[in-house]
Amino acid sequence: MGGDRGSEMAIQGALAAVRDTKGLEVILIGPRTILEQQLVEHVAGNIEFLERISVHHASEVITMDDSPVDAVRKKKEATIMVGFDLVKNGLADAVVSAGNSGATMAAAVRKLGRLPGISRPGLASFFPTLKKPVMLMDIGANVDCRPQHLYQFAVMASSCSRLLLNLDQPRIGLLSIGEETGKGNALVKETYDLLKQSPLNFIGNVEGRDVYKGDVDVIVCDGFVGNISLKISEGLADAAMQMLKREIMKTWRAKLGYLLIREALKGFKKQVDYAEYGGAPLLGIDGTGIICHGSSNATAIRNAIEVAANMVRNRVNEAIVQALGEYAA
Amino acid sequence: MGGDRGSEMAIQGALAAVRDTKGLEVILIGPRTILEQQLVEHVAGNIEFLERISVHHASEVITMDDSPVDAVRKKKEATIMVGFDLVKNGLADAVVSAGNSGATMAAAVRKLGRLPGISRPGLASFFPTLKKPVMLMDIGANVDCRPQHLYQFAVMASSCSRLLLNLDQPRIGLLSIGEETGKGNALVKETYDLLKQSPLNFIGNVEGRDVYKGDVDVIVCDGFVGNISLKISEGLADAAMQMLKREIMKTWRAKLGYLLIREALKGFKKQVDYAEYGGAPLLGIDGTGIICHGSSNATAIRNAIEVAANMVRNRVNEAIVQALGEYAA
Repeated sequence: MGGDRGSEMAIQGALAAVRDTKGLEVILIGPRTILEQQLVEHVAGNIEFLERISVHHASEVITMDDSPVDAVRKKKEATIMVGFDLVKNGLADAVVSAGNSGATMAAAVRKLGRLPGISRPGLASFFPTLKKPVMLMDIGANVDCRPQHLYQFAVMASSCSRLLLNLDQPRIGLLSIGEETGKGNALVKETYDLLKQSPLNFIGNVEGRDVYKGDVDVIVCDGFVGNISLKISEGLADAAMQMLKREIMKTWRAKLGYLLIREALKGFKKQVDYAEYGGAPLLGIDGTGIICHGSSNATAIRNAIEVAANMVRNRVNEAIVQALGEYAA
Repeated sequence: MGGDRGSEMAIQGALAAVRDTKGLEVILIGPRTILEQQLVEHVAGNIEFLERISVHHASEVITMDDSPVDAVRKKKEATIMVGFDLVKNGLADAVVSAGNSGATMAAAVRKLGRLPGISRPGLASFFPTLKKPVMLMDIGANVDCRPQHLYQFAVMASSCSRLLLNLDQPRIGLLSIGEETGKGNALVKETYDLLKQSPLNFIGNVEGRDVYKGDVDVIVCDGFVGNISLKISEGLADAAMQMLKREIMKTWRAKLGYLLIREALKGFKKQVDYAEYGGAPLLGIDGTGIICHGSSNATAIRNAIEVAANMVRNRVNEAIVQALGEYAA
């Protein structure tokens, strides 16, 4: 209910997920009458999907303007609170939300708690690259971090990307301002040593320039740097597209050319579109949660549901706990 | 001498600068015989420019692989050391270098010292936006900062962009992960208060998404975050261009379209090309220095020389010292 584009995107995304993934069931959480009415409108000819989509009533909504801490304390009947309750009680396997991300994280930690041994759950996200997508963690949950937190992000993201992308030994990089050992701020220098000593497949520092090359599978950073990396990339992609269009609109010749490359541009946009990458897994909680962009469209929701299902089926949390234990031993 | 593309780019850039800017004189620093020979080759028909280009001999070169600290201690005859000596002795007004940036900064501070009241000199850089360029500071000189340092970056970048871009009251933003007061890491929160209390035209936090919109003139951040912002932008721009070309090469239709939009693409590239923005001013030293990308081409060098000349003519350093004094009072 709490996304920028309302519950219709969630419903369309849920329908697409149910259509595309065998055996998947989706529970829509929110005001029953509203959701049931919208569901009927969107399901149209595909009545059979209704067997795998249900509505669970929740009366309150946490908005984007709500303070996360206050909201999870006061709005006990909010959709996101009810969602994590369903997971806690074994009635759902995962929660997908395009609502207030701070509140979603707070609700997840409050309702489900952390995985054993994890000091700080965090948000991971896939970035498109010239090769395979790279997972960056943390992208905004933890703004002031200690080396131990970054080390745990590496363990969590490594387990997650190994299982989701079917990698043997994900290559872990540490985001810094130079490739050489000893480059970076105090946090990075200490984290470097921790990662170096660990059994992780740590390949060293990676620079901002290397993020989009695709020669690394997981990039670790604190949530402040990760959030800025994500947002600056989104902002640049938007601005570049606008600048390019402005240039193209200057001549008839270029306008004609634009018509001819329009399909290629669509293919390109699909490659860089964050919607294609299925939201941001919240790793380190004792359960599964995916946080989507507030402006997520139906495709983004569909893909996030699919990622959530893959995380559950591949038992990502078990792998994280096992890896943490093994590495500590 | 120390740039990735050798001294030829510096010579071509110097020739272009002398051609385009009245009254400007350039001193090339490096091994005399090499530089004089290259100069003669490149000057071709434009003998009259030689009146404003001279060669000053320096026998050593600091390479990209040299440790900055060691290099400035051991290579006393390096081009960059000799350059800042010329400034110190009043024989030159500014230094432009595409060499080892760490060594250039170290040499500048060692030879010229800091401006009165400045605790940490830093590197600023213009970023292209949908409107006017925005100046980001620091982009890599200071990786671990205190609020007072960021406050001084704001004062320096504000004075510099005011004079170079002819702005009345540059709008200052603080790079963070949310626009609201109280968002960000510990450093940003404390800096927010300092900037809020200052007479600077502080407009609050700006997110990564906002960097390329052009609604702010100066963005302040620590050098770790600034360097990653710069490099990730460069990396994304490169990768996006490669992805787009890959898509275009898939069909004949798109290839034909590409031919028609090629001029528009060139215009676009020029807009986002860092070479167009004239290098990174080193602010806070008692003199003028511009650090260029190691891979700078002749245009980048030309533009950097022009920025250096503008900084000197507009007395940026005097403005910085005056602003610091006024704000402290």
